[in-house]
Amino acid sequence: MAAEQRAGAPAYQRIAATYRDQIRSGELTPGDRLPTEADIAARFGVVRQTVRNGLGVLITDGLIVARRPHGYFVRDREHMVYRPQQKSRPRPATPAMDRFSQQIVDEGRTPSQLIQVSLIQAGPDLAQRLGLDPGDAIVARRRVRLINGEPTNLNDSHFPLDLVKDSEIMSPAYLPRGTDQVLAELGHPQHHAIDEIFVRMPNPEEIHRLSLGPGTPVAVHYDTGYTADGRPVQCAVNVLPGDRHKIVFERHWPTTVTA
Amino acid sequence: MAAEQRAGAPAYQRIAATYRDQIRSGELTPGDRLPTEADIAARFGVVRQTVRNGLGVLITDGLIVARRPHGYFVRDREHMVYRPQQKSRPRPATPAMDRFSQQIVDEGRTPSQLIQVSLIQAGPDLAQRLGLDPGDAIVARRRVRLINGEPTNLNDSHFPLDLVKDSEIMSPAYLPRGTDQVLAELGHPQHHAIDEIFVRMPNPEEIHRLSLGPGTPVAVHYDTGYTADGRPVQCAVNVLPGDRHKIVFERHWPTTVTA
Repeated sequence: MAAEQRAGAPAYQRIAATYRDQIRSGELTPGDRLPTEADIAARFGVVRQTVRNGLGVLITDGLIVARRPHGYFVRDREHMVYRPQQKSRPRPATPAMDRFSQQIVDEGRTPSQLIQVSLIQAGPDLAQRLGLDPGDAIVARRRVRLINGEPTNLNDSHFPLDLVKDSEIMSPAYLPRGTDQVLAELGHPQHHAIDEIFVRMPNPEEIHRLSLGPGTPVAVHYDTGYTADGRPVQCAVNVLPGDRHKIVFERHWPTTVTA
Repeated sequence: MAAEQRAGAPAYQRIAATYRDQIRSGELTPGDRLPTEADIAARFGVVRQTVRNGLGVLITDGLIVARRPHGYFVRDREHMVYRPQQKSRPRPATPAMDRFSQQIVDEGRTPSQLIQVSLIQAGPDLAQRLGLDPGDAIVARRRVRLINGEPTNLNDSHFPLDLVKDSEIMSPAYLPRGTDQVLAELGHPQHHAIDEIFVRMPNPEEIHRLSLGPGTPVAVHYDTGYTADGRPVQCAVNVLPGDRHKIVFERHWPTTVTA
């Protein structure tokens, strides 16, 4: 629907619709500056507060950002490609970096991580996935992953305490070979995994850990890994801000369908 | 952080935090009614408008709904399990229902679909995925899928015009055997696919087609299907409201990692 056809709508909605259409069509692209509040006010014949209300809708929807005093800009959506399947592919025997770090370095950017290890009680979500009772002790290895110093996503891995106690997983140090390899060395190699993806608004803790702006929903990716005999040995909760990630899977038809 | 520790925060924030904590901990579960505005006002020693502001935060975040005159309720999150991998698994030779309908019937619910077919010009997103130039003609088979009469998700499939013209895909009729099978019969069996998942707030058209409430982000799942020689033959854009879906993949380690 062209903005002109919305003549009956309130002015702030017409303003929002006009620039939403321009962003959608590609007329305005990420990083572009919108016209000034004064220019938009003159074009629509309204006061500046009406312009601010209209652009406020687009800020809430995560389409533009206000960078005072420079103006309003189309939000930059540089999506990190997030591939859960990479996790279960073979790696070199002695990796120098974990998968996240390697990918970011390959992109010419600088990865870093904040790691915190704690002993916690499993809530209902984790207890169910790890085959434990709520309240059972689990090890939480919580990480904020950063690219060029900016928080990018959360990767909080959880393990039944009896599987990993006294291991390197309990230390808040960087593990270049990854916790999956450590689990395998402890006698718990993973054989298959279930990926579950939920979409919701972030909670206050996630907003804080990731410095999220308004209108930024997140994907919550639960990765539960099982040994060959079906025992769950780890459950990672990855929180991926929607403006910074696309999640990619590859899929093959087992047999070609024909007529 | 317990609500009591937030004593320095404004009252409306403390109210939001209190009920957010109760929902998160499971003390309040989906469908539960919150205390009345009057009860909350008395508990926090504030006026009712402050209570409304506090609960408004939770409505915007999609955690509760207001059902006047009955009160505020914890949002019911009955997640439809959405499995992209099912699409590329063998089916009976003469299916009576498409996969979506079969799944919903198996759950004891009633599926329906609104189907609309049109000839459109490919925008940049679809042109890139279908290997066409922007503006090239494509066939759009747009569907709203409903469960028990409620809009649940969007499934808009797109095909290069030259592949499907004069076929059943051009008719806005229900195709129990599915468009993948029709494509195969036309000589374009799919061999592999790329699943891309983006997370964002819905646009006004999506809000309208899906009757979305406030604070409901969506997953946008692009499923691009290729023939064995790498030609893209269809691209479906599935819009999945976050409050109604979880996306599930299963994954196997190709070789077991050991020490």
